[in-house]
Amino acid sequence: MARTEAPDVLVIGGGIVGLAVAWRARQRGLSVTVLDPDHGGGAARVAAGMLAPVTELQYGEEPLLHLGIASNVRYADFCAELSEAAGQDTGYRATGTLAVALDADDKAELGELHAFHQRLGLASEWITGREARKLEPMLAPGVRGGLHVADDHQVNPRLLLTALVAACEKAGVVLHRAAAAELLVEGDRAAGVRTSTGEHLTAGQTVLAAGPRSHLLPGLPADVLPPVRPVKGQILRLRMPTAHGPFLNRNVRAVVRGGHLYLVPRADGELVIGATTEEQGYDTTVTAGGVYELLRDAHELVPGITELPLVETSAGLRPGSPDNAPLLGPTALPGLLAATGHYRNGVLLTPVTADLIAETLATGAVPALAAPFSPSRFARSPR
Amino acid sequence: MARTEAPDVLVIGGGIVGLAVAWRARQRGLSVTVLDPDHGGGAARVAAGMLAPVTELQYGEEPLLHLGIASNVRYADFCAELSEAAGQDTGYRATGTLAVALDADDKAELGELHAFHQRLGLASEWITGREARKLEPMLAPGVRGGLHVADDHQVNPRLLLTALVAACEKAGVVLHRAAAAELLVEGDRAAGVRTSTGEHLTAGQTVLAAGPRSHLLPGLPADVLPPVRPVKGQILRLRMPTAHGPFLNRNVRAVVRGGHLYLVPRADGELVIGATTEEQGYDTTVTAGGVYELLRDAHELVPGITELPLVETSAGLRPGSPDNAPLLGPTALPGLLAATGHYRNGVLLTPVTADLIAETLATGAVPALAAPFSPSRFARSPR
Repeated sequence: MARTEAPDVLVIGGGIVGLAVAWRARQRGLSVTVLDPDHGGGAARVAAGMLAPVTELQYGEEPLLHLGIASNVRYADFCAELSEAAGQDTGYRATGTLAVALDADDKAELGELHAFHQRLGLASEWITGREARKLEPMLAPGVRGGLHVADDHQVNPRLLLTALVAACEKAGVVLHRAAAAELLVEGDRAAGVRTSTGEHLTAGQTVLAAGPRSHLLPGLPADVLPPVRPVKGQILRLRMPTAHGPFLNRNVRAVVRGGHLYLVPRADGELVIGATTEEQGYDTTVTAGGVYELLRDAHELVPGITELPLVETSAGLRPGSPDNAPLLGPTALPGLLAATGHYRNGVLLTPVTADLIAETLATGAVPALAAPFSPSRFARSPR
Repeated sequence: MARTEAPDVLVIGGGIVGLAVAWRARQRGLSVTVLDPDHGGGAARVAAGMLAPVTELQYGEEPLLHLGIASNVRYADFCAELSEAAGQDTGYRATGTLAVALDADDKAELGELHAFHQRLGLASEWITGREARKLEPMLAPGVRGGLHVADDHQVNPRLLLTALVAACEKAGVVLHRAAAAELLVEGDRAAGVRTSTGEHLTAGQTVLAAGPRSHLLPGLPADVLPPVRPVKGQILRLRMPTAHGPFLNRNVRAVVRGGHLYLVPRADGELVIGATTEEQGYDTTVTAGGVYELLRDAHELVPGITELPLVETSAGLRPGSPDNAPLLGPTALPGLLAATGHYRNGVLLTPVTADLIAETLATGAVPALAAPFSPSRFARSPR
């Protein structure tokens, strides 16, 4: 049983959130180890990377909106700094997003969303179907109008993950390749983990960033973390022609048959179409039905996709907390912080999550922006 | 420029037809070389392997029907002999086929096909929708009836190709890995080929079995072979559960929106769904539209496919002659035979093609069954 020198911070989970937290914590002068059998994996490897706090706004979710906008406004700088540190691009593109309506019900719903945007002072412009097709000529003739949201952009999560791994390595973060087998608790305090290879990794503070498997870590006391359920998303990758001008210029989204559909066009010609929302446990199978629904709905929105090569189908697991908002900051177990439960917003919320958790790790204080997302909000009784 | 000892027969193209011809010719005592950069490739690697001369019968195609039935009746023995020779299975399954109708038009059309079957004395039983669902409980409730064709079976073309490669090798067929760069003509007679690596491979007789690229061989005199156009087919592979009895028991097919749709369930749980028919040149891109149409139409026929994993999407090129019937036997150029143009029936027609061409190679005589498929039938004037 080997013991290595204890770092200040041990991050369990080397997905997008864990790596970004590690990078930011290291920048604050802390020594950091990230534990994962496959750093740079997780749900973000599958995600489309749409950064859409405004178009995805839900009623009654203002704290989450503020968190999302706080993350969105720092995204450009986060990516610029990361690209510089890693020597690699992240695929960040300030494209804006078009949320369109296919029928009268959609139109009414988008109209209400637009009014809500206006009350909150968010940039959101109502446009007619004709105007929408002028912006995006490939849109179906049936599109009846929609919202042009100038500040909802995109990033390429695969490039972002690669850049985070590189930036962590260059900054001296230790990327330890193993799984966490058990949380170590000494006295009444988290002390680190036992790894799948039998090592004991101790640390001053431990951050649980293991997505939908966070609450399953053996040794985690009851009631410290609510269950984080896996919500499966299937997604497609097509290839757009690049010869005759862009096929699509910006993110296009709609609600089709109750499901969120979005098309995210990248500068390199990749077109990502997502995503299903399925509560199926820890299953990441790509199914005939999932692919069928995405193609059917996307075809309704942008008929011209039929000619495009279908180059990849994949599925990932979003981590969903009981209220679908993230779990951020200190848990009821001293020495253990959470950074998980980001559900459909993991990529969007990565910069703000990293900043907030790094701040807490470095100072011990929980920033006001993080307070509504305390993991303790579900506790049945005070510990 | 190396010269190797000239074999009796040189086969250009190591796809399913070329390999089967080579194996049968070798069994007749001829020395045989097959030229291909990738033996065991070609359209059959993509094909579903439905052996359906009866359910695919077209009016006015009786000679092709007879050829198809002649091949079908020898399929079981062909596979048994091949498995024995290769020491490998071919996935041949005597499942029968159900051709079903989804609407009144389909029903009328299948009714006419049934009458035609009866006039020709073919095994073909009309069954009601209820009877169809009793045979195949996963069929959609909307299925209105159909034909149960007891003698239309299936094979696994990938296993068949692997077995053919092994059987050829064991029998002493030389599998030469290179492309054909030019047909060599000496005097007024085909003499072999120059390969892409510069070798001259001469042979007593040359068989052109290069699928939709057959007529493109440099050096081939004009009018010896009509153009063989590529007809693209996209196809899907799903995985069926095997725990609770079979998902489907037999081939199921229908004409949906004018396209041939078929589901071929294999014993190992693979479910093949094919196929699109597209005239797109030599393009084998899998497109969003192709996959969408197959899933949409298959879902209409067997709704339960939505739960099945989608494990592979692929596309191949069927070789289509001007009349969509194969080109079999001696061409107008002495020493050159054709075995191509099998269009949608390449897998089905492999055993009979191999027997007929081997017979011609060994004896110089063209069997009566092959006569209607002479490559010279398109010649503008006698040479």
